[in-house]
Amino acid sequence: MRLITFKVAGGARLGAQIDGTVVDLQAADGGTDGLFADMLSFIRSGAAGRARAEAAIASGKARLPAADAPLLAPLRPSTILCAGSNYHAHNAEKKDSPTSGKEPEFFVKTADCVVGPDEPILFDERLTRKLDCETELAVVMGTPGRHIPVARALDHVFGYTIVNDVTARDRQVRTNEQGFTWYELGRGKAFDTSAPLGPCIVTADEIGDPQKLDLKTRINGDLRQSSNTADMIWSCAELIHFFSINFTLQPGMVIITGTPAGTAWSTDTELGGKWRNLPGLVPATRYCLPGDVVECDLEKIGTLRNPVAGA
Amino acid sequence: MRLITFKVAGGARLGAQIDGTVVDLQAADGGTDGLFADMLSFIRSGAAGRARAEAAIASGKARLPAADAPLLAPLRPSTILCAGSNYHAHNAEKKDSPTSGKEPEFFVKTADCVVGPDEPILFDERLTRKLDCETELAVVMGTPGRHIPVARALDHVFGYTIVNDVTARDRQVRTNEQGFTWYELGRGKAFDTSAPLGPCIVTADEIGDPQKLDLKTRINGDLRQSSNTADMIWSCAELIHFFSINFTLQPGMVIITGTPAGTAWSTDTELGGKWRNLPGLVPATRYCLPGDVVECDLEKIGTLRNPVAGA
Repeated sequence: MRLITFKVAGGARLGAQIDGTVVDLQAADGGTDGLFADMLSFIRSGAAGRARAEAAIASGKARLPAADAPLLAPLRPSTILCAGSNYHAHNAEKKDSPTSGKEPEFFVKTADCVVGPDEPILFDERLTRKLDCETELAVVMGTPGRHIPVARALDHVFGYTIVNDVTARDRQVRTNEQGFTWYELGRGKAFDTSAPLGPCIVTADEIGDPQKLDLKTRINGDLRQSSNTADMIWSCAELIHFFSINFTLQPGMVIITGTPAGTAWSTDTELGGKWRNLPGLVPATRYCLPGDVVECDLEKIGTLRNPVAGA
Repeated sequence: MRLITFKVAGGARLGAQIDGTVVDLQAADGGTDGLFADMLSFIRSGAAGRARAEAAIASGKARLPAADAPLLAPLRPSTILCAGSNYHAHNAEKKDSPTSGKEPEFFVKTADCVVGPDEPILFDERLTRKLDCETELAVVMGTPGRHIPVARALDHVFGYTIVNDVTARDRQVRTNEQGFTWYELGRGKAFDTSAPLGPCIVTADEIGDPQKLDLKTRINGDLRQSSNTADMIWSCAELIHFFSINFTLQPGMVIITGTPAGTAWSTDTELGGKWRNLPGLVPATRYCLPGDVVECDLEKIGTLRNPVAGA
């Protein structure tokens, strides 16, 4: 099932994408119990909600042309748990971090960072002149758990979406006089519009193995990142286990899984970038600026597209 | 005005503390427009809401004994913006950070970290064996703004409360082979029960100057921290300015302002602690364990009390 949140006059509705149309699930279901009030209510409803949604879709009622259902962020997670330095090829292009490869780097983004498809990523030069984009597979949690074993981790997943882990690179990377580099991830990763999320959530059954998905970034049509989730250092299941040490993972929490090579950072020698010319990719010659269009592709999910605009 | 959120059968209500009693604001007001539905709605209502609340209190209606109004966290902020290393004496007791004194350290906690007064702080040894507590003045934002000038920053404040910035010290502090220390603030600061918040929000007019407030931590009655917000390196107004570079500060966002000397870290030579025996304080000889009771005092606000319990 491919689930969206779409805009209606005065609010938002939960929808399912079917054959190029959108089913308004609340209207098709006809119930008034709030099951389809929003994505989080639906995620929490589990198998019972899923069965009701399938029946609502099968009814054939309340179908809209996709153009009449403008997309919003499918979910505004209370907490986005983020893994850093989680692709082999990305680690080869950037300044070494002392933690690289030992355990996942860990930072958080908050609900206030989220924007939806087609909403602008703000370029604000009082915040950063090095605005960089990172396509990432995002895991949407379905059932709660703490200290979740790796072997059972994927059973807790509701579905998958895309997050662009927008980064203020000049606020993230610090180097001291001795050349030692460390990351201030709070400062460089959490800010207005730093978590575009969408366009839809695809349920886990339709994704299958999350470690076999192509992902790409195009900026103004140029291919900047092109990899596969098979290149992750820590798998989705391992990240779920790891983050569940800190948090009881709750329905609707989101885990983002790191980004592959090809960020603008890779060519930024001021910040230790070590570009390796990967076949077919266009080296980033500059960071993002107003007027750019960023597209994040993930196989089986789709494309998250956002323009960059002045603040 | 001293505002609380209190528990009722099946939900929560917004209250004001008056002369040892609690006014149920929704009931005293009698309106049905949702103004008093929760703390965030009330904060957003601005001066009009404030006037309605004062009238509701003056009516003398809907007063409860405080014992009949058990406290919850007064607010569950979507984003808690956190300053690190912001008291002169705390910086003298701990391992140097390369950023100390140059600009505020910056990390975030999320809504999922928050618990209320009297709720347990969980000790989970799979997460940490070095569970440490930090009393901090918390600023509750009232009106939105980005790039807020220092001179006007306090005009954006709704009120003040207390946050205990609970920390997994062994997950926060890293030292490499060359003795260089850095902080992984996401990993060490954001986890279940890491942000006890309360007991009430005191409006800005009743606090006056936020840089003249005594703050104390007692663990099992022993005085562990005792300082004054005058010892902050960056004032509340400066922190508001600084964090508003990253975020449009929204009503109900919370900024926490750092902690003074006296944490358990100060005596932990494994992590670089450099205890200086401050007059009147009991040196922390160990981190928190189940059975401990932590009390965070802030002048003009009150005491935030939480037990420590096994996970």
